[in-house]
Amino acid sequence: MNHKQRMRQLQSALLKSKLDYLLITHLPNILYVTGFTGSSAALLVGDGEAGEREAVLFTDGRYRTQARQEVNNARIVIGSKAPALAAAEWLASQRSRGRILGIESEWLSVGARDRLSAALRGKGGKARLRSAPPLVERARMVKDAEELARIRAAVKLGASLFGIACKAIRPGAREVEVAAAMEFEARRNGAEGMSFPTIIAAGKRSAVIHGRASLARIPSRGFVVCDFGVILAGYCSDRTRTVYVGKPSQEARDFYGAVLEAQQAAIAAVRPGVTTGEVDEAARSVLRKWRLARWFTHSTGHGVGLEIHEAPRVAAGQTQALDPGMVITIEPGAYVPGKWGVRIEDIVVVTSSGCEVLSPEDKGLVVL
Amino acid sequence: MNHKQRMRQLQSALLKSKLDYLLITHLPNILYVTGFTGSSAALLVGDGEAGEREAVLFTDGRYRTQARQEVNNARIVIGSKAPALAAAEWLASQRSRGRILGIESEWLSVGARDRLSAALRGKGGKARLRSAPPLVERARMVKDAEELARIRAAVKLGASLFGIACKAIRPGAREVEVAAAMEFEARRNGAEGMSFPTIIAAGKRSAVIHGRASLARIPSRGFVVCDFGVILAGYCSDRTRTVYVGKPSQEARDFYGAVLEAQQAAIAAVRPGVTTGEVDEAARSVLRKWRLARWFTHSTGHGVGLEIHEAPRVAAGQTQALDPGMVITIEPGAYVPGKWGVRIEDIVVVTSSGCEVLSPEDKGLVVL
Repeated sequence: MNHKQRMRQLQSALLKSKLDYLLITHLPNILYVTGFTGSSAALLVGDGEAGEREAVLFTDGRYRTQARQEVNNARIVIGSKAPALAAAEWLASQRSRGRILGIESEWLSVGARDRLSAALRGKGGKARLRSAPPLVERARMVKDAEELARIRAAVKLGASLFGIACKAIRPGAREVEVAAAMEFEARRNGAEGMSFPTIIAAGKRSAVIHGRASLARIPSRGFVVCDFGVILAGYCSDRTRTVYVGKPSQEARDFYGAVLEAQQAAIAAVRPGVTTGEVDEAARSVLRKWRLARWFTHSTGHGVGLEIHEAPRVAAGQTQALDPGMVITIEPGAYVPGKWGVRIEDIVVVTSSGCEVLSPEDKGLVVL
Repeated sequence: MNHKQRMRQLQSALLKSKLDYLLITHLPNILYVTGFTGSSAALLVGDGEAGEREAVLFTDGRYRTQARQEVNNARIVIGSKAPALAAAEWLASQRSRGRILGIESEWLSVGARDRLSAALRGKGGKARLRSAPPLVERARMVKDAEELARIRAAVKLGASLFGIACKAIRPGAREVEVAAAMEFEARRNGAEGMSFPTIIAAGKRSAVIHGRASLARIPSRGFVVCDFGVILAGYCSDRTRTVYVGKPSQEARDFYGAVLEAQQAAIAAVRPGVTTGEVDEAARSVLRKWRLARWFTHSTGHGVGLEIHEAPRVAAGQTQALDPGMVITIEPGAYVPGKWGVRIEDIVVVTSSGCEVLSPEDKGLVVL
């Protein structure tokens, strides 16, 4: 990862946004800009106008060694206070009067902002706080070559878990046993962990959209929604497959077919310049045609990378246009409470002319 | 769990704090008060003065079925907006002029507060926002009988994983393989997941305090810090054991012995009325005696329950007094960068006269 280049680009963005400093408090943003993987930090970035190395990472004693190993584009300050507060006190000790400090208002609590504001006031620094645009999130939307390579590797490992799931899914098995087998395989292959709690939702539970694998036993007949992802070298995968245990009725096959058609329509809609709202509509209109739109109660997808959910949102009404290098999920579904549910999900990379589905495979209904 | 009683107690606390409403945005707090386990919600609780059922849970369509199944002490409102914003708009539509709305300022972002404030203004509701004391966190510190039973079960399952670790730890094995074996066992036994990323830190990496299991191989000689926990029926366990691979030197034995002495001193200090700062000092003073205090660079412990880290903090200078029913970790450690580290951790329950160590066992140095 070229962290020095990311820092320079961020500093240019600061200048354009008329911010003298940005206080980054969202850990994945800090990781993106500096490479620091610790669980407690704040990163203060100056606009670079001072001509000196103007980025300071604040963390605590637990991360002294790790920060030095990982970060080469920011000064490291170890302290015992909350990192954002330490950053404010540091800034107050500089000649910061009248300067404008951008904060990540979605990633700073009201309480932390109040303490930060008091620390600036108390030391006479008097920098002014302003909510910054999501500068790092915007940069993160378009992945570079190394990020794409890592995402490909994560998706490949993630995809391999579906075979494990198919072996473990059988009537009477507990959902959690299926998840355990998948997660063991992921870990054995170097995953740092799962990118979210594995969803194995069988029978009527398939209608529970976020049905984390439970102690429930898989019934002798019905859909099983499997939604799973790994974190590998820092990057997330995300994939959903829905299988049928027992002999599916024609109604079940048609229901599955409608969701698959919606997913394929959304994938076909992905190309540079199209808005994510249009991609969402491509999926939704297919389900509308099949009179299933009322059961599609979530959005079509989301960006994925260092975080399992990141910009852009792929949802109704969103106006964000797609650019080459963006990585999003396409995951329409339909869920009839008390009856059943189906979701099918892939990750796609926006290319110059359309998109590439990562780890594609036949998505016809798998019957177990 | 007696959610109705928890709601009543919260409403009394609201009255005492002179708040007309509390907007709860921290999901574990919502789970505690209502039983709702979804990943997106806001809970608006009135002070009960209106004499009617004055609690409303806002969530989205994904959780329609689940919310109805889980929640019996709040009205459920399904919407497509951010839940906190939906709550503000709902409140603005009520006769809320001049009423005081407490917010969880540690659990509401600056951005969300700004949108919430605009929604209240826009509709002419004009409730006034005020940062609320941590009312739910305070209630959560003291566990009831059912919570204690669940924590005991989680700790018991968590403790059993150490045996798995001891079998998997051998020179040449990857740290992540040890973690995978432990996590598989946890899942097979019904854990919803791990309560934090499993730490297996071998050899020099044992000095990395938060050394998540990595692809590194276990060297032929040295400490291996194993810090691990499960989530079982919603409650977290947390335990650390440090073993030695190969033949330990007398220096290694002494180093381990000092940390163990510190841990035992802190456990002995736990009883009602003692502050958590005093418990921290009990551990720290032992390490000071052994001239190791400079290597003990974190706090002695933390509350544990629905969250892996919750109130109270067990750290230097903390003035929170212990009460029977509080559940905290005791986990001093010492870490010499580039050389080695040791941490030993148990969960204890404060009793009427002292404390009970959950799933106690001999903590003499295990040599593998």
